[in-house]
Amino acid sequence: MPSISAKGVAMPQSPIRKLVPFAENAKKQGKTVYFLNIGQPDIKTPEVAMNAIRNTDKKVIEYSHSAGYESYRKGLADYYKKTGININSDEIMITTGGSEALVFAFMTCCNPGDEVIIPEPFYANYNSFAMTAGLNVVPVTSRIDDGFALPAVEEIEKLITPKTKVIVICNPGNPTGYLYSKEELEKLRDVVKKHDLFLFADEVYREFCYDGAQPFSVMNLSGIDQNVVLIDSVSKRYSMCGARVGALISRNKEVMSTALKFAQARLSPPTFGQIAGEAALNTPQSYFDEVISEYVERRNILVDGLNKIPGVFCPKPKGAFYCVARFPVDDADKFCQWLLEDFSFENQTVMMALASGFYATKGLGKNEARIAYVLEKSALKNAVKCLEEALKVYPGRTN
Amino acid sequence: MPSISAKGVAMPQSPIRKLVPFAENAKKQGKTVYFLNIGQPDIKTPEVAMNAIRNTDKKVIEYSHSAGYESYRKGLADYYKKTGININSDEIMITTGGSEALVFAFMTCCNPGDEVIIPEPFYANYNSFAMTAGLNVVPVTSRIDDGFALPAVEEIEKLITPKTKVIVICNPGNPTGYLYSKEELEKLRDVVKKHDLFLFADEVYREFCYDGAQPFSVMNLSGIDQNVVLIDSVSKRYSMCGARVGALISRNKEVMSTALKFAQARLSPPTFGQIAGEAALNTPQSYFDEVISEYVERRNILVDGLNKIPGVFCPKPKGAFYCVARFPVDDADKFCQWLLEDFSFENQTVMMALASGFYATKGLGKNEARIAYVLEKSALKNAVKCLEEALKVYPGRTN
Repeated sequence: MPSISAKGVAMPQSPIRKLVPFAENAKKQGKTVYFLNIGQPDIKTPEVAMNAIRNTDKKVIEYSHSAGYESYRKGLADYYKKTGININSDEIMITTGGSEALVFAFMTCCNPGDEVIIPEPFYANYNSFAMTAGLNVVPVTSRIDDGFALPAVEEIEKLITPKTKVIVICNPGNPTGYLYSKEELEKLRDVVKKHDLFLFADEVYREFCYDGAQPFSVMNLSGIDQNVVLIDSVSKRYSMCGARVGALISRNKEVMSTALKFAQARLSPPTFGQIAGEAALNTPQSYFDEVISEYVERRNILVDGLNKIPGVFCPKPKGAFYCVARFPVDDADKFCQWLLEDFSFENQTVMMALASGFYATKGLGKNEARIAYVLEKSALKNAVKCLEEALKVYPGRTN
Repeated sequence: MPSISAKGVAMPQSPIRKLVPFAENAKKQGKTVYFLNIGQPDIKTPEVAMNAIRNTDKKVIEYSHSAGYESYRKGLADYYKKTGININSDEIMITTGGSEALVFAFMTCCNPGDEVIIPEPFYANYNSFAMTAGLNVVPVTSRIDDGFALPAVEEIEKLITPKTKVIVICNPGNPTGYLYSKEELEKLRDVVKKHDLFLFADEVYREFCYDGAQPFSVMNLSGIDQNVVLIDSVSKRYSMCGARVGALISRNKEVMSTALKFAQARLSPPTFGQIAGEAALNTPQSYFDEVISEYVERRNILVDGLNKIPGVFCPKPKGAFYCVARFPVDDADKFCQWLLEDFSFENQTVMMALASGFYATKGLGKNEARIAYVLEKSALKNAVKCLEEALKVYPGRTN
């Protein structure tokens, strides 16, 4: 039997999935499990998008242009203009989710063996996409005690080698919910410019900013037009993760024409998803207002609730729908597994994502977990209560 | 400005697209262009698939399981059983088109630097997928005078080195339409077994077999269960290329579990496409009967018509909807461009795909072109007439 590739063997399992068998077991035992481990919102997809799908008069589901339907790209350019990002439709390529956009960006800009600097904790699949392109991830650590702010520029610069090709950020951030300020982004800009690096920014949570905070896009950083690649997606914005529609955006024409070669090889992004995505551009503001206010309430219930539990600390994020909390436990990985295997409160328990999987530096995040507030408020209240009760009896409690 | 990756620079342009600017120009000049260069059928998508999309009652377009909806995989297993392929739903992973299935298969089974043997001419994007995975394509030449039959086993074995990991075939074949016999496939099986290689077979044209010919699947080759990976897609079968739904299929559990890690990184194949694909499993046989009889008539008009033109030779394919024809010209690439730039007959002309782009060996296919019979019969008749008239006046005609 021929052997599997080294890359396949080394590919890490997602920290979101490691505990799935334990959760399934807990459900089999009749426990109610609150799934706070995944970023799949329960929010309804906008009606305007679903109606476009239901009313399609297409007779043949053909390939679209490899860069996506032109009408959709033009519509997207308008959307970006409205959000204050001035780009043209030919600076936009529609991709199969943000995932494909990032893989294409890595393949386009980096050679195997190149290094990619990413502030940790970061979205764990960045590891897989970097591995797919043969790249080495070099983490720079952001700290829970700083609320996961951008690490000092000196810490970033110390990591730059001749192999460094890209800095990747996610803003607002998954898993931390941290929203970079304009000042932080300008510091990054200076580093990128000085060392002639690419800057990739995953801004898929742009709409999810709270407490009046405004997101600042890397596309609006002056002086690094040719260095910036924006990764975007409809998945979270319109709660249509399954549409598999994202975008790779850059003002660098060589990046766009090279990425197009990768896009042409796979022929076309999904037609149906594009139809839904284009229609979703007409989602009324009231939809977002409702969603944002729902997320703010959920965040407050979750984060304020967590911070009231003795020994627990959770920075209050200004964006996305995740937070990373620190627990007074020996090992959060063990704690998360124990919650599913050995604990229940009124027959309920909680599934969280192991924060250690979001750090590239071994040993970090060992008393942290990522929590997604993608469930309704009553479930979140119950989940917080579960955690409070659990920490009263968890045998590995530390303080 | 940072430089683009070597891979991106080297990525070849598709032979289907090289002449697009000339075709656009021809259209601007008011010429009718018969686009025989692409594999985008004009056949309608089955109503049963479109209705499933129109009637969806989903409220949230969620991620599916990374390997695809379980109900769809079970339905697919039934479909395969009906076609005489005995596999279980857990041996099937739904992918974003056949393209992604092949990339995952390469990434799963091969290390960068490994070699992949492919009979040429072959589907040009195999080059791009191999490059994406860092692999070297080693072509073994099939010949138009043999109707593009499998090259002799000795020719294949001569190419095998310690780096050889996979043999890839497409059956029925794009671009040749050639259908491998059971005997040919058993010869391949013996090579695969002897040298412990993987055998990947792209069988996306399975339904398109003519003149009573029956396709034989690599899944039914005995003795190489653990070596075989089947690549499949709904694109051509149901004329829904834009759905972006394919499948990676193998009885090798290590292949499946490793491929799943790549699938989990990109989260989910498209939801809408899967809904359409699952519903399409109920496409009535009458749909295929009509489509097949339409393709047979088209093939006969095209291939018989081509063979009547003095100096033109085109093997009559038993499958798919392509053929490769040899023309009495100095250089088919120049001829194809000339057709668009400098020729018209009754204000019409023809766009073909450059066969040279389907060969990996430099210099081969220089008097051949690939023609897809994806247009209605009257258009094909006119296209053949155009080619006949063009060859009367083409300045680079050779005999």
